[in-house]
Amino acid sequence: MKNRAKNIFNIIEKNLDAIVIKNAALPFIDDNFFYITGLEKGIFEGSLLIVCPDGTLDLLVSELEAESASKAKANIHVFKDKEDIKSIIKTSFSSLKNVGVNYTGLSHRDFCKLKDMFPKSKFTDVSEELLKTRLVKDEMEIEIIKKACMISDKVMEKIPDMLYEGMYEYEIAAEIDYLMQKQGADKPAFETISSFSKNTAEPHYSHGSTRLKKGDFALFDFGACFRKYNSDMTRTFVFGNADKKQKEMYETVLGAQKVGFDSIKPGLQTSDVHTAVSSYIDNTKFKGRFIHSTGHALGLAVHEGVGFGSDSHVDLQENMVFTVEPGVYIPGFGGVRIEDDILVKKDGMELLTTSSRALLEI
Amino acid sequence: MKNRAKNIFNIIEKNLDAIVIKNAALPFIDDNFFYITGLEKGIFEGSLLIVCPDGTLDLLVSELEAESASKAKANIHVFKDKEDIKSIIKTSFSSLKNVGVNYTGLSHRDFCKLKDMFPKSKFTDVSEELLKTRLVKDEMEIEIIKKACMISDKVMEKIPDMLYEGMYEYEIAAEIDYLMQKQGADKPAFETISSFSKNTAEPHYSHGSTRLKKGDFALFDFGACFRKYNSDMTRTFVFGNADKKQKEMYETVLGAQKVGFDSIKPGLQTSDVHTAVSSYIDNTKFKGRFIHSTGHALGLAVHEGVGFGSDSHVDLQENMVFTVEPGVYIPGFGGVRIEDDILVKKDGMELLTTSSRALLEI
Repeated sequence: MKNRAKNIFNIIEKNLDAIVIKNAALPFIDDNFFYITGLEKGIFEGSLLIVCPDGTLDLLVSELEAESASKAKANIHVFKDKEDIKSIIKTSFSSLKNVGVNYTGLSHRDFCKLKDMFPKSKFTDVSEELLKTRLVKDEMEIEIIKKACMISDKVMEKIPDMLYEGMYEYEIAAEIDYLMQKQGADKPAFETISSFSKNTAEPHYSHGSTRLKKGDFALFDFGACFRKYNSDMTRTFVFGNADKKQKEMYETVLGAQKVGFDSIKPGLQTSDVHTAVSSYIDNTKFKGRFIHSTGHALGLAVHEGVGFGSDSHVDLQENMVFTVEPGVYIPGFGGVRIEDDILVKKDGMELLTTSSRALLEI
Repeated sequence: MKNRAKNIFNIIEKNLDAIVIKNAALPFIDDNFFYITGLEKGIFEGSLLIVCPDGTLDLLVSELEAESASKAKANIHVFKDKEDIKSIIKTSFSSLKNVGVNYTGLSHRDFCKLKDMFPKSKFTDVSEELLKTRLVKDEMEIEIIKKACMISDKVMEKIPDMLYEGMYEYEIAAEIDYLMQKQGADKPAFETISSFSKNTAEPHYSHGSTRLKKGDFALFDFGACFRKYNSDMTRTFVFGNADKKQKEMYETVLGAQKVGFDSIKPGLQTSDVHTAVSSYIDNTKFKGRFIHSTGHALGLAVHEGVGFGSDSHVDLQENMVFTVEPGVYIPGFGGVRIEDDILVKKDGMELLTTSSRALLEI
């Protein structure tokens, strides 16, 4: 992973002696810790990673993670307690003057702790540079993400056959998570959304005890976490025959997604994609019903900091990975969202999730 | 949830006008947001919660979560973008002078953002007070945790019958997560640990492609997340007949756990429990093989900031919930951990997880 470390320093304009990544307790674990070390197992609470401009990695871990850490190409320092950490830093790293820190991945408490641990250092925020490096995926990352997408696709294809009248939302969520793990996912990428009827109008609903009935929208939004990388996809079905309004909503979202796909190419900006998609929807009878951004960068994190939103101005580049997920939501009635994962290519994009997007009446 | 808010202010010695809880993007969501609002569904990325000493709650949420937020007893302010947030704060909250903030639940970037949003306010860290309030569970919390524990117990009991020679670690992890969700869990409390053979020596291993063979240790560490609260338990089985060393390891850990149970009562400190347990193990042939703390507080977070560790000096109080989880680990050979969840009672403790702890040879 030396190259990843070097890539980060290549785009940092300031002169830094090192970057220090510090993990707190779950959930305050910095994804960059795994990005830079390449480690795929372990939690590494309380661990410190010191990254030098030549790509050298030093890893301070507790005894608890010493075995897991040994899989990284890094100098491993095992500590027993806080005093140990201080003494390791004093002995080996007290000469670091200019230190880059990830302001977005670090708790404020841990920022204060770092100031204590490195009393002579000056800290600079490198969160933008870390994000920028991670947005463009390398070959190994793309391969892993493709596998995560394949797992989601395989599971999505099985859902229509599993649905029956009276089924609970949480039951199908359990089936989805189970099938993903049977297909090799390490865990669900996030809490699976399995919503029926009017619950589909809440984009961040997860699942509950609502039962499936004829005529309902049934929306499934889930992803596989595979070797720390994530997929994220959504399909909305109609259980029974779709009525006119449901069909109109669906066709609108499907059309909007196509507009999104067509507006993805290097040279354009993330905001351009959102503008195209939201304008499309706002020119239909569902004006004002698309209440979130069009998508987000995807990788080690499900939401990688940059998205297709109106105030996000990032140049699209080859090998970036995003979701494209327009939706239309009518409170009290229901919602439709169609979400796929895409890879930005030299002259457009490649779909990484390939399940059918046509309206399915089950 | 007015009482919870008031309880926090009751133990804050400084004079504060409000506490502000700010969520960033997943996973940097503050559990206290859910603790204080009582909300059980939704993600609330980017949301702000303003808590006043009289228990009044003001909730700033995006359109995306407006529907989910409406379930809270709070004044709801829906924003469309960052400018909206600023204008809501300027109109309604610019008079707040002394503001409490959770340094451990907030990214450093978000701390800087809060300083921008509340330019006239002075911030004080209230993480200790939030933690202290949450350590003592109320009746409703205990009821929910008991249900989460019951789910884990039911699943643990089914594991021995599911194991067969040649089974992959990830297969049984999938079964465990599936069964928990079928029993009503919203999701696994954390990435389920399902480890065989020498992998059991890595306390934070999750699961991989190792196959089960005769004579192996098989260790399962998992929990159910139910209505946002977690359980967390571990059992270690031997697949086949246990050899002498395996038996000795098991008996040592079992004895250590009993010592832990016996040392839990109000009046003693968290460190006392760890001292008792680690001294017990260090007086056996497995001296030095217990490489983590004896347990941790459990609730909305799996690790609630305080644990049974040598440098943790918190007075045990009635209605605190902890794990008790001694272990013995021999790299290259394997490890044993036995973990249960307990509730501190007036004169001792109550076991919340009740699966058999006797050595099981399968």
